[in-house]
Amino acid sequence: MTARIYTAGLLVIGDEILSGRTHDKNIAQVASWLQVQGIRLSEVRVVADVQDRIVEAVNALRESYDYLFTTGGIGPTHDDITVDAVSAALGVPVIIHPEAHAILERYYTDKGGLTDARLRMARTPEGAELIPNRMSGAPGIRIGNVHLMAGVPHITAGMLDALTGTLEGGAPLISETVGGFIPESEVSELLREVEKAHSQCQIGSYPFFRDGRVGANFVIRSTDADELQSCFDTLCDGLGAAGFDFTPGGI
Amino acid sequence: MTARIYTAGLLVIGDEILSGRTHDKNIAQVASWLQVQGIRLSEVRVVADVQDRIVEAVNALRESYDYLFTTGGIGPTHDDITVDAVSAALGVPVIIHPEAHAILERYYTDKGGLTDARLRMARTPEGAELIPNRMSGAPGIRIGNVHLMAGVPHITAGMLDALTGTLEGGAPLISETVGGFIPESEVSELLREVEKAHSQCQIGSYPFFRDGRVGANFVIRSTDADELQSCFDTLCDGLGAAGFDFTPGGI
Repeated sequence: MTARIYTAGLLVIGDEILSGRTHDKNIAQVASWLQVQGIRLSEVRVVADVQDRIVEAVNALRESYDYLFTTGGIGPTHDDITVDAVSAALGVPVIIHPEAHAILERYYTDKGGLTDARLRMARTPEGAELIPNRMSGAPGIRIGNVHLMAGVPHITAGMLDALTGTLEGGAPLISETVGGFIPESEVSELLREVEKAHSQCQIGSYPFFRDGRVGANFVIRSTDADELQSCFDTLCDGLGAAGFDFTPGGI
Repeated sequence: MTARIYTAGLLVIGDEILSGRTHDKNIAQVASWLQVQGIRLSEVRVVADVQDRIVEAVNALRESYDYLFTTGGIGPTHDDITVDAVSAALGVPVIIHPEAHAILERYYTDKGGLTDARLRMARTPEGAELIPNRMSGAPGIRIGNVHLMAGVPHITAGMLDALTGTLEGGAPLISETVGGFIPESEVSELLREVEKAHSQCQIGSYPFFRDGRVGANFVIRSTDADELQSCFDTLCDGLGAAGFDFTPGGI
């Protein structure tokens, strides 16, 4: 029996990533969180703050995968156009969400009140639900299989936390790592053979260069714990038989 | 006169990024390097080590932008399939590149010789040129507007360095930043007005939460130094007139 695999796309929206000014932290954060939900991140796109490009990417990704997550562009400034773009992609109007309005009103009571700019953060596509944001006032947004989250990583973290356990997923992908100062070119045949003998496992080889020496970490991934263990044992045996020093857990 | 804008797409290939195991460093690195070349990074995609997905993304990006860069998947192991996928996308056969063969033979002379696995790194799409790699033996690959680079960031850095000044670009995008413990929702109207008054500038607003206080950096980008300075001065004047403390250069 093959279990259903649940998939997700991630759309990172923001000129600051494409300019190199900001190092993205959301890809790794969303990816790790999805693993635990039993959902596989299958594709990421990063696009600029340009409505047509966002619309195009939203439609491509929400149709290709079970879930779509977006980060960025839901703040109060003129370059925050994610809500408009997602609404256009879905063909629904933008509304002021009554619950978001109330949340922001409460949040800004002792912070100078709810200005027009701040009210922008209550705008959602019609028919959306809110994703709680315990860090700052403005909520995330969920409509259909699309989840709009903040660009600031720690706010996104809070939104992911609020979503934990609410999405249907499959068996989480689990992994084991073994690494060493082993040139990957000397074990590529071994990796290929071990992977072939364990059809429910994938092995990734991640080379590095450290302290003047080359090495690699080999990561085995599977949804089946027994298969994973068997594949890990076989790989360690193979590395040992070939005379390599290796470190379970990776280095 | 509007100067031509040169654009690029970046395709990051690798399960390790999509699993969250590895934090990508190539997006920011390639983005920053492209800025200096006068080329605008317009879109990034991250896909798994699956040939069909790579082929699809390569064709979409190389046709949409002036240049395409890929990172990852050009090593010696079974999960390194970028050369195969790019060849399939371009409709050309994979060959052993004679010059790459010679480079690898020299490189591995005192490292155990050129095995079958290592020879994989001499494979290129037919018609390709090499991108020098001073860090390790295996070269990068250039064919048409597609540039195949390593996944390991410091090796990619060396390949970018080798490409510096060889690609046709436009005027580099330059930027000025001003920041402060300023809630972006209190200056969104100001940002919109200042941007509107400087048609050759874009202003991005990047909020943060630090030491228990909210703030933001405002980044102005332009290809025109005079316009950039004028926009920067106007924004600083506006922030000062509104009673905000701000720091040129950002905080």
